[in-house]
Amino acid sequence: MDAMTIAMPPDLVARFAQLVSPRDTLDVDAAAPHLVEPRGLYHGKAGLVVTPRSTEEVAAIVGLARDTGTAVVTQGGNTGLVGGQTPDGSGSAILLSTIRLDRIREVDPDENVMVVEAGVTLARAQEAAAEVDRLFPLSLGSEGTCTIGGNIATNAGGTGVLAYGNTRELVLGVEAVLPDGRIWQGLRKLRKDNTGYDLKQLFIGSEGTLGVVTAAVLKLFPAPRETATAFVGLPSTAAALTLFRLARARAGQALTGCELMPRIGVEFALRHLPGARDPLAEPHPWYLLLELSSPLETGLPDTLEAILGEALEDGVVTDAAIASSGEQAAAFWRIRLGLSEVQGHEGGSIKHDVSVPLARVAEFIDTATAAVERHLAGARVVAFGHAGDGNIHFNVSQPVGADKAKYLEGWAAMNQVVHAIVSDFGGSIAAEHGVGRLKRGLLSGVKSEVELDLMRAVKRAFDPEGLFNPGVLLTETRP
Amino acid sequence: MDAMTIAMPPDLVARFAQLVSPRDTLDVDAAAPHLVEPRGLYHGKAGLVVTPRSTEEVAAIVGLARDTGTAVVTQGGNTGLVGGQTPDGSGSAILLSTIRLDRIREVDPDENVMVVEAGVTLARAQEAAAEVDRLFPLSLGSEGTCTIGGNIATNAGGTGVLAYGNTRELVLGVEAVLPDGRIWQGLRKLRKDNTGYDLKQLFIGSEGTLGVVTAAVLKLFPAPRETATAFVGLPSTAAALTLFRLARARAGQALTGCELMPRIGVEFALRHLPGARDPLAEPHPWYLLLELSSPLETGLPDTLEAILGEALEDGVVTDAAIASSGEQAAAFWRIRLGLSEVQGHEGGSIKHDVSVPLARVAEFIDTATAAVERHLAGARVVAFGHAGDGNIHFNVSQPVGADKAKYLEGWAAMNQVVHAIVSDFGGSIAAEHGVGRLKRGLLSGVKSEVELDLMRAVKRAFDPEGLFNPGVLLTETRP
Repeated sequence: MDAMTIAMPPDLVARFAQLVSPRDTLDVDAAAPHLVEPRGLYHGKAGLVVTPRSTEEVAAIVGLARDTGTAVVTQGGNTGLVGGQTPDGSGSAILLSTIRLDRIREVDPDENVMVVEAGVTLARAQEAAAEVDRLFPLSLGSEGTCTIGGNIATNAGGTGVLAYGNTRELVLGVEAVLPDGRIWQGLRKLRKDNTGYDLKQLFIGSEGTLGVVTAAVLKLFPAPRETATAFVGLPSTAAALTLFRLARARAGQALTGCELMPRIGVEFALRHLPGARDPLAEPHPWYLLLELSSPLETGLPDTLEAILGEALEDGVVTDAAIASSGEQAAAFWRIRLGLSEVQGHEGGSIKHDVSVPLARVAEFIDTATAAVERHLAGARVVAFGHAGDGNIHFNVSQPVGADKAKYLEGWAAMNQVVHAIVSDFGGSIAAEHGVGRLKRGLLSGVKSEVELDLMRAVKRAFDPEGLFNPGVLLTETRP
Repeated sequence: MDAMTIAMPPDLVARFAQLVSPRDTLDVDAAAPHLVEPRGLYHGKAGLVVTPRSTEEVAAIVGLARDTGTAVVTQGGNTGLVGGQTPDGSGSAILLSTIRLDRIREVDPDENVMVVEAGVTLARAQEAAAEVDRLFPLSLGSEGTCTIGGNIATNAGGTGVLAYGNTRELVLGVEAVLPDGRIWQGLRKLRKDNTGYDLKQLFIGSEGTLGVVTAAVLKLFPAPRETATAFVGLPSTAAALTLFRLARARAGQALTGCELMPRIGVEFALRHLPGARDPLAEPHPWYLLLELSSPLETGLPDTLEAILGEALEDGVVTDAAIASSGEQAAAFWRIRLGLSEVQGHEGGSIKHDVSVPLARVAEFIDTATAAVERHLAGARVVAFGHAGDGNIHFNVSQPVGADKAKYLEGWAAMNQVVHAIVSDFGGSIAAEHGVGRLKRGLLSGVKSEVELDLMRAVKRAFDPEGLFNPGVLLTETRP
């Protein structure tokens, strides 16, 4: 185990270690899981892994980093999918894990806010809201492990964006330790505050490059009282878009979930998720998981039935199952949320986390699928995700029987094929997972030099020495 | 008329003038209205007032300003209430009016977006949305005159924030001319895009200090199909808060308006708005204007009646009138939207545009009113506004018969009394109108030095020479 290579002088390691309790510096074995990202794409090294327990401890660590020119990589639940949480291979950085910044400081159902520290897992934040009969609507596959700090650093999306917005829309205030070691106390709870630049917006989505977010004020919403969920079979991507529009027109704000799945994804789920069953009798080329929910009792099951009845009559929908219990709804969601995992059982998977304008989702999927199949015979496109947000996880599983390593060598070439089409469609090549290390080299192809200059100027304004998450997001981090 | 004092050398004026068509440089008379803000608090001078017609013309003007070290003050509809659109008295700046950047470039109901230039008035943007059966929900008293560019520069609020958010939540993309003269093309239409710092967020609310916003992509929403409006009499501010919570619990997202008014404000309106009539038979200490609306037909009039019935039974509400027609609803709104104007007929008015946490609105109004009445006997508090957002326009009309000029000399002292209470309540002294010139001196009292340093660092990153709206927002604009 050479993960903790000492590129950092031992006396410097010791100085950092003194800033926290001995139990909050990880030994080699404990540190190892922090130094590889979940897909195994990036393996890093760190001079030390520390798990501070307070904002003041974070400030002390950052202060020493500033004084000694030490790079700082901040990590939450280590679930990021673009390598933004993994230090480079030099071993010269401090890895600052926020997992012990885990206090829920305040939950205020009256004000509909809660104040949580960066290391609180998303699931715990959801539970804290539920305990006071409120909803914190951010929801992701990795919610049991990912942290609020990581959600903020990546402006996480997930399945609730359609009705409640991205993480950006859910944050009222932020507390952060700046690269100069000072604490910015921005934990505001106000719905309106126009006293200058909205600095928290820069931290949201900054991927650890501007400092360390240590806590945040999050918005809460009324808890749903009524939910109706359907698993719908469709003949085409165009039909999925038509059904989405119909559901939105009929259910309005109560349409809280609209997730697209291809037949191949459902097949993977049936094959690899223990106990999974096909909700529909026959196979269908495409599926939508539709969820209506509302804090009011408005007869959503009837609304959902009416929507599906109309769509069946119009030939938009081929078949549909409405969940008759919470368990059945959970079984529908399990198929959808299992789609990332099950691809791992089918060999190599080349990922594209992309978005296009809503009206072009169907056309994009069809065009990109055809292009990928031309690019590599036998490639199995698994395009799924947040259709109502224009956000598709356009993943491509290897041909059956192909060599995984060899297939993955074609990652960049496959990306080129898909990203070119994304650009043609006016889309984004990093819709919800961020840029990290994985896509930093691609930014120059999709952003103007003007915009990259502005991003670099912001980076320099906050972190003139380029010590925070070097190599992530921007290729040139030092001025 | 000395408004156009030539502190700027005539040859420089000529060079700027050459960058636009002759009809787009204003002569002294035409320029005069641009050089005083609507309340008459600030009178400025400018070397030249130009009204460019394209982003390229704006870029040329900014380029020359950069080359010659000329300050640039950008102005939209000139309706701002904090002096942010008014040049200083030196006459050395160019006043760049966006009113001829008035094209609606695109309206896409399918995608629920529109692309408009900065000088399009808010009312025109609303109309363009309505023409395709969509809603652009930003709504302000000055909507006939104020511009989208000004709305973005100030992150405008208004009466739709409760359901749809501030301007910040309504903007998907921005096009801007940067202080270095380059055009940043950020007109994105995507709902999800995590490719780096969200730079548009800095322009939103930047009050012209970071460059010139020339166009924006705005979100559209389904047009309301059903609306129900009530004018409700209440015994106290606490009752108003209770009713707000009840309405939100019963109507959810359909609660699209919740505006608080005091009896004195309604009296002013009845006295000064031609044809205004009291919607209720008896006077009440406080009023709420409640509006429910929805793109779905869900029986909102019944919902509203049920809410008010429950509140009457509980003694929360004393009396209420439900509008029986669109005209009657408009008459209710006219009283609310006329509250700013009618105060002008009652002598001097000292303004406070403040917000506090929602749960503390009632307590804040009561506390601040008592303090103001202790501070100045006979002072007439007119506290009204967006109760559901925690945003109160805490205005204080002069004692009956007092000398207006003398009363207004007490502006700063009165502000101190009120703002001290705002701070105690964890509120903001600039909730929706911004900082401008009026409140720039107050920022150091409400922001930490850390935050002010960050704001200055952002300013320097964008505008190192401090040429954009000097003296607005930040007191030190040059590094």
